[in-house]
Amino acid sequence: MLVCPLMPSSDFSIGVDLGGTNLRIAAVDATGNLLEKITLGTQVSKGRDYVVNEMCEAIESLTSRYQKKSTLCGVGIGIPGIIDKRTDMLRESPNLPGWHDYPVREEISRRLGTEVILENDANAAAFGEAWLGAGKGCDDMCMITLGTGVGGGIVMGGRIWHGMRGMAGELGHMNIDPEGHPCGCGSRGCIEQYASATAIVRMTRELIATGKAPQLARAAHDNLEFGAKVVYQMAVQGDAPAQEIYRTVGWALGIHIADLVNIFNFPIYVVGGGVASGWDAFAPALFDELRVRSFVYAATAPGDAERAPGKSTIVTHALLGGDAGLYGAARLPMLMSEIEKHVVARR
Amino acid sequence: MLVCPLMPSSDFSIGVDLGGTNLRIAAVDATGNLLEKITLGTQVSKGRDYVVNEMCEAIESLTSRYQKKSTLCGVGIGIPGIIDKRTDMLRESPNLPGWHDYPVREEISRRLGTEVILENDANAAAFGEAWLGAGKGCDDMCMITLGTGVGGGIVMGGRIWHGMRGMAGELGHMNIDPEGHPCGCGSRGCIEQYASATAIVRMTRELIATGKAPQLARAAHDNLEFGAKVVYQMAVQGDAPAQEIYRTVGWALGIHIADLVNIFNFPIYVVGGGVASGWDAFAPALFDELRVRSFVYAATAPGDAERAPGKSTIVTHALLGGDAGLYGAARLPMLMSEIEKHVVARR
Repeated sequence: MLVCPLMPSSDFSIGVDLGGTNLRIAAVDATGNLLEKITLGTQVSKGRDYVVNEMCEAIESLTSRYQKKSTLCGVGIGIPGIIDKRTDMLRESPNLPGWHDYPVREEISRRLGTEVILENDANAAAFGEAWLGAGKGCDDMCMITLGTGVGGGIVMGGRIWHGMRGMAGELGHMNIDPEGHPCGCGSRGCIEQYASATAIVRMTRELIATGKAPQLARAAHDNLEFGAKVVYQMAVQGDAPAQEIYRTVGWALGIHIADLVNIFNFPIYVVGGGVASGWDAFAPALFDELRVRSFVYAATAPGDAERAPGKSTIVTHALLGGDAGLYGAARLPMLMSEIEKHVVARR
Repeated sequence: MLVCPLMPSSDFSIGVDLGGTNLRIAAVDATGNLLEKITLGTQVSKGRDYVVNEMCEAIESLTSRYQKKSTLCGVGIGIPGIIDKRTDMLRESPNLPGWHDYPVREEISRRLGTEVILENDANAAAFGEAWLGAGKGCDDMCMITLGTGVGGGIVMGGRIWHGMRGMAGELGHMNIDPEGHPCGCGSRGCIEQYASATAIVRMTRELIATGKAPQLARAAHDNLEFGAKVVYQMAVQGDAPAQEIYRTVGWALGIHIADLVNIFNFPIYVVGGGVASGWDAFAPALFDELRVRSFVYAATAPGDAERAPGKSTIVTHALLGGDAGLYGAARLPMLMSEIEKHVVARR
């Protein structure tokens, strides 16, 4: 991670996590301390301008409070959707209808009079975990975020890898089974169809339909909030069909991460997002597959001290929970600011 | 690609491609001109020391000839197998028995008295295509090499991406079908089991066994040199079962490259190696899958001028044929030398 002695630790930036459900805004200082966090419901139905207005007001309120004693580096905003890095426009964002091809960055920057950086939310989460979470101290890592869908973020050399147009890191649509369940992306059998919260509910309903999961059937019938979490709780309580569902999640993640290990040979791979809280239910199957499917992992797995002293491949769960994206977003303008100061200092 | 005005174009380096069958040694100048190439059979059966001796003699012979009027940058050697970048030792090299855990680089460097760089052969081939071939002018690309097995090489920012221990880029073992044919790596259904020359022969023999491929059966029976090339020739001549085999190759490559496009969002992906000469037989199925399986490709495919002016995703065959690895190996010490001179010049 880039370390800059020029940036006073009293400096701060604003991170925004603009989700489909919650809009969260935080002031974070340069050492990663959370100064203050504001959580609002994202009132998507009231339209784009309403949401942008709420966001800007919260940012201005935090800024005015902390700018008295320290300097604002800028604002980083994590957004669900693909951001075209060439135009800084949102290409696709199913959860934010009406934001398509709207100059978000430009609008907010103009209104606030400060540097604004947009980032895909899964990229921001990976960046947050690389800064302060499971990947702390690692310049190279990737993170898979298991939520309603499956997102991914790749950090290389301490920076987010964006690729040619900002579309890199779409790990949720990597192939597991070429003849598997159809995916919203147009393909079939993507990891999103096995390891997202949506997939867990779908697989559970499929299992219920076979009549082989009576307890799950009862839970699904009684519970208005039936979802991946309930299936996880039942797996932990020993319900065999629920355990089978989570074994499938682990099986798919093992295949998925084996591919990533064979491609990148990174020191760390992080599994995050809401579904990752079911880690103990899917991790055994994940590692069973990973050991068999990636000879790079087999050669560098932890514990193999003789062949890989201090150089093993770690696969683990995220540490920052739902705040990873908020921290990652806040980090973006800091890094930008550090680099600018570096360049100035070297001239 | 790093451009260095400090390196005279008259400088040269030696590239070595140490294959299981052929040992090739070339002198290449800084602008990529081949000065001279020596091809020897790799007499693996005569033992490691014999091969190293032959290699060193050929390098010394070329060096003495060209060193009169220009300066030797160093020697780059492409080797089939995994090179541990920490120790510069070969970890695994099925085609070179007895080379395991032997200090190749150190031995050759000591004997020749010059800088020697070892590289995995598929990485060297990718580096060669990035320098002078299909990826010329691109800093970011990857190449899949379809030979006896399937290798891969990733070039990012004009350098080979090695990962933590030099094991990155093992693209041949990415998942196509989790319940597919067992692979030598310990997994099942890797791309190597669908798109290597070995896989083409295996799939052909499986098809012959069903009795549905009479022409292929005759060809396999009559021809001592029956292999992927013969199947390709028959596909071109209109034999439906042979065409089916190549459609399977394209199907698997389409799934494979869709994953790579979703991960990297690179401007170019190159398919090389002997099997790539059957490009016209497998490419249609490849692109059919790719368009459906990667929404990143769909959004950036060439021809979509409105959405992606000058920023499209190119998937194409290699241009340097069997010499890609030789050029890539020769490029390695040049780049090292350029960087060193840059550092000195900036001091």
